[in-house]
Amino acid sequence: MSPRPLVVDTDPGIDDAFALVLAAHSPEVDLRALTTVFGNVGLESTTLNARRLLALVGREDVPVAAGAARPLVYPQPPRAALIHGDDGLGGQGASLPTPGAEVDPRPAVEVLADVLRRADEPVTIAPIGPMTNIALLLASYPELKPKIERLVVMGGGLEIGNITATAEFNIWSDPEAARRVLVEEDVPVVLVPIDLTHRCAVDSEWLDTLANSGPVGESLVGLTAPYRANYRKALSRDAMALHDAVALAEVIQPGILRCERMAVEVECGVGPTRGMVIGDRRNHSTNRVGREIEVAVDADLDALRAFLLDRMGSSRR
Amino acid sequence: MSPRPLVVDTDPGIDDAFALVLAAHSPEVDLRALTTVFGNVGLESTTLNARRLLALVGREDVPVAAGAARPLVYPQPPRAALIHGDDGLGGQGASLPTPGAEVDPRPAVEVLADVLRRADEPVTIAPIGPMTNIALLLASYPELKPKIERLVVMGGGLEIGNITATAEFNIWSDPEAARRVLVEEDVPVVLVPIDLTHRCAVDSEWLDTLANSGPVGESLVGLTAPYRANYRKALSRDAMALHDAVALAEVIQPGILRCERMAVEVECGVGPTRGMVIGDRRNHSTNRVGREIEVAVDADLDALRAFLLDRMGSSRR
Amino acid sequence: MSPRPLVVDTDPGIDDAFALVLAAHSPEVDLRALTTVFGNVGLESTTLNARRLLALVGREDVPVAAGAARPLVYPQPPRAALIHGDDGLGGQGASLPTPGAEVDPRPAVEVLADVLRRADEPVTIAPIGPMTNIALLLASYPELKPKIERLVVMGGGLEIGNITATAEFNIWSDPEAARRVLVEEDVPVVLVPIDLTHRCAVDSEWLDTLANSGPVGESLVGLTAPYRANYRKALSRDAMALHDAVALAEVIQPGILRCERMAVEVECGVGPTRGMVIGDRRNHSTNRVGREIEVAVDADLDALRAFLLDRMGSSRR
Amino acid sequence: MSPRPLVVDTDPGIDDAFALVLAAHSPEVDLRALTTVFGNVGLESTTLNARRLLALVGREDVPVAAGAARPLVYPQPPRAALIHGDDGLGGQGASLPTPGAEVDPRPAVEVLADVLRRADEPVTIAPIGPMTNIALLLASYPELKPKIERLVVMGGGLEIGNITATAEFNIWSDPEAARRVLVEEDVPVVLVPIDLTHRCAVDSEWLDTLANSGPVGESLVGLTAPYRANYRKALSRDAMALHDAVALAEVIQPGILRCERMAVEVECGVGPTRGMVIGDRRNHSTNRVGREIEVAVDADLDALRAFLLDRMGSSRR
Ligand SMILES: [Ca+2]
Ligand SMILES: [Ca+2]
Ligand SMILES: [Ca+2]
Ligand SMILES: [Ca+2]
Repeated sequence: MSPRPLVVDTDPGIDDAFALVLAAHSPEVDLRALTTVFGNVGLESTTLNARRLLALVGREDVPVAAGAARPLVYPQPPRAALIHGDDGLGGQGASLPTPGAEVDPRPAVEVLADVLRRADEPVTIAPIGPMTNIALLLASYPELKPKIERLVVMGGGLEIGNITATAEFNIWSDPEAARRVLVEEDVPVVLVPIDLTHRCAVDSEWLDTLANSGPVGESLVGLTAPYRANYRKALSRDAMALHDAVALAEVIQPGILRCERMAVEVECGVGPTRGMVIGDRRNHSTNRVGREIEVAVDADLDALRAFLLDRMGSSRR
Repeated sequence: MSPRPLVVDTDPGIDDAFALVLAAHSPEVDLRALTTVFGNVGLESTTLNARRLLALVGREDVPVAAGAARPLVYPQPPRAALIHGDDGLGGQGASLPTPGAEVDPRPAVEVLADVLRRADEPVTIAPIGPMTNIALLLASYPELKPKIERLVVMGGGLEIGNITATAEFNIWSDPEAARRVLVEEDVPVVLVPIDLTHRCAVDSEWLDTLANSGPVGESLVGLTAPYRANYRKALSRDAMALHDAVALAEVIQPGILRCERMAVEVECGVGPTRGMVIGDRRNHSTNRVGREIEVAVDADLDALRAFLLDRMGSSRR
Repeated sequence: MSPRPLVVDTDPGIDDAFALVLAAHSPEVDLRALTTVFGNVGLESTTLNARRLLALVGREDVPVAAGAARPLVYPQPPRAALIHGDDGLGGQGASLPTPGAEVDPRPAVEVLADVLRRADEPVTIAPIGPMTNIALLLASYPELKPKIERLVVMGGGLEIGNITATAEFNIWSDPEAARRVLVEEDVPVVLVPIDLTHRCAVDSEWLDTLANSGPVGESLVGLTAPYRANYRKALSRDAMALHDAVALAEVIQPGILRCERMAVEVECGVGPTRGMVIGDRRNHSTNRVGREIEVAVDADLDALRAFLLDRMGSSRR
Repeated sequence: MSPRPLVVDTDPGIDDAFALVLAAHSPEVDLRALTTVFGNVGLESTTLNARRLLALVGREDVPVAAGAARPLVYPQPPRAALIHGDDGLGGQGASLPTPGAEVDPRPAVEVLADVLRRADEPVTIAPIGPMTNIALLLASYPELKPKIERLVVMGGGLEIGNITATAEFNIWSDPEAARRVLVEEDVPVVLVPIDLTHRCAVDSEWLDTLANSGPVGESLVGLTAPYRANYRKALSRDAMALHDAVALAEVIQPGILRCERMAVEVECGVGPTRGMVIGDRRNHSTNRVGREIEVAVDADLDALRAFLLDRMGSSRR
């Protein structure tokens, strides 16, 4: 079977870095482009980081195109803290190889459209940052929707939030874009929420093993200091969540996450629940809202962590 | 120790019925008044039901005063179904004794104020319906707040909803009132959410034992048919939740529920999360909102069910 | 004809002061109580000011009862400036007579209810501050609604705002209370918005004449310095609006304002139009919302100013 | 001076038809493209109508590209009535010439970007429908903003609404897009609201003169029956508003409308003021929101109507 065509839309970001290495090391997918978006840090940094990470894994043949520098409708709210460091890579971005390839001059949305248009088979898109670029793609090129295999989205929290009590950072960063993509479109979606990614957190032993696996693993782990410190507080143990990498695992091995079909809605009001993903898990329906999508709710966690470690620690070129 | 003075603000309702019997059978509390509110059914029915239930337990000495027939700001949204039956008591209200005592002619809020004003020690109030009356009390009589021992509120859902995907019926029925009481006031509050009350659901064996305990237990169980049918679907097993009775257990035996202190907020926007109680359980705080109150998160469930059964099945007069 | 029974619910305030003098000097009305509310300044000040103003006009027989110190649901937003001075009376409150009568010990809502209950004929209520007390009255004592002749409300702006681009101060100070009263109830309402009260502004000649009319007129005008300075900027001429007094003129001489019946709604969202009164003046109806009330849209302005001057400058005792 | 490059973004629509004829007949502008959007009727109809209108004026050299079929974030709300007829052209679209030219295969946003990119001087864009395409353009191609001379937007109502009490149809149809364009961007904007376009309404004499001016004028007036009937009710006289044509007049003769600079905001909440444009006309600023743009507030109305008649009735080819 030929590898599955893939575009990753990303705001690197520590866990994006892990996800991109995972994708680059996995023969099941054919990474056709990276598109970047504001998010963990500003667009210039996320775009530079995407290029650095491709240089790290020797995949500078993959085009990188810059997308939205801000949300669709409202300004980006200030972030309380830069848990990914000032540069998005734990302050250690400069430790990665200097990129040799230029940024694609086209906007992300054109590159996404172009990849879809040229593809012989439907393309998987993995949005692992705010969903602004994806909303723009679907709004500007609705005729290309049949060329999308599915969207495997890292975002949302059903029972928990991170940036607010009820909202996860990616969705909260552009709730209007998220609503357009998750609720208003009929493209197949798998949503990978933090309820699950927190449960898949990796511990220091896992990170040590990765660091010792070779230069790529060592580089990745070298980026994690501030991020790890933050998760130590959030999770109350020495572990860190690899959110975006969990979503990429599902891209690479469809079914590795157990999903449930449920109606989801995104709160776009400007009150305290702004940016919340509502997942309706009730058995019987009153006041049901939104659209039914697949939500990842469980996995064989040990097997998943082993898979991630095995792939990230390999050195496929 | 003298019994704890208590007012129950209620919209009976099946689980309210269980809660009122529990209160009436418990020597630890001195039930000084019932105040009624719209909710499970209209105010006329909830007021009649409150009187019927006092007649059932032989406590027609307790004054009953009718309160709000509607929410503070917006009309009451239509309910999808009458899970408490047309009359609020499973269609079996007429099976209870006909009340002999008149309704107190004063509005609920005056009776609440009067009980507080006359009390020698602080009074516990147990709001087990929409919180409209309590918001009116606190807004009209702020000087009486020191006379409130605490509010033990049945309402909200931290990870789940019932009437919507994220909202519980009592809070959703008047979110503005709930916000005033839970977030804007400094009166001590224990919130008993459906996350816990669902876990305390009782099964058919428990109900059979109660039915066989005597005429009061038999009457109570005789009200439950439609309510039980609904919970069978919601909980996917033959069990029913005694929400309001769980809150009353905490009133009668403070500490029987294990509480955590957390910041709560109530969403009053008119979007999909309207009426949601946000409980912030994150370890570290970004974008924290609301006020810190006690939220009941756990209990020795078997002991609690045994306590409920023992009290409801007794016949203290 | 016997004088019309009246309660004024007020947050004095300069224009409230003019309105109270107008009411006290008008034989057509029988002022049965003043109830006070937070607003232009805090509740303690508005209550003290109400008593000072009754002392000024020799009407300390009228009971004064303190009501809400804050809005129903949300905290009072900070005011940009104290255009009524630190004490609500242009910094000159102490120039008025020291009150001799005590504050009524009952909450405003009880006094309002008591006046209604005792009245032989329906009572006019003139809410000329935030409508919190009136919402509490209607919510707690719905059975007394037939005893209300009408509410003559100073508030709102159809085409203009003052505290925000679209909202007037009284409504904006408690939009939820305003919505309850204006939209949800069936009590007759006349709304006197700033569109009209701005057109009824009085100039320095008018004020000079009032100041020379006697001690009461002199006292009133002596309170106006900061308020006048503010209106000089807002209106771009040396004139000041007597908002609340315009509403009282309608109470005293029903029909002195020309009213149109229109559907009104109050925006209670937390976005930029919060606190706006929507008056639907379209000829044909799509998406109509709210309730039809009377809105004052015009008057014989010169005759109205002459009436105000004549009454305020008189010395009826 | 060379003609001003222009793109009209349109949802024809009767008044769009007048506007397009005006643009086509005016040598001051060089019409480089029409982009279409959902609005008065669906996208297929507005796109067909745009082509029919170019055929009518003999300008099928101008490319037509189809844009958004729906709003950015929420579904399009149902319209109360089709005041532009079932086909958007008063049910008379088939009376216009059958288009000979194909639709441009690219999405509107690409055509807009392409025109901007190729232009030697900044391009005027006239959005005279919902602003979805313009929001997508600015979000996807921020680097092209300096190539925009200005946006001359037909939309909003400062003191009045049409589709709701406070909202105008174009803005209400996609408030999120309007907010992005009007409030969040720094591109120069002239907003032409219905407050002014209603005052510029034309009467039956004007329409008769246009009908007698030649075949184009006759065709235009032949489309107006249902639209005219609607405005007869809305304006209470036999006149109809040429909203979009008023905006185009400003494009063709900059300064023909008198503008005031004011801060504007767009209400995107889901309450009763949804889609309202807030224009802050207060002299002094408290709680100011939004961005300062130019808003057309007045014109020499007779001269403007004469200009429109002269141009539409001409037959420049
Ligand atoms: Ca990410
Ligand atoms: Ca209840
Ligand atoms: Ca006032
Ligand atoms: Ca149009």
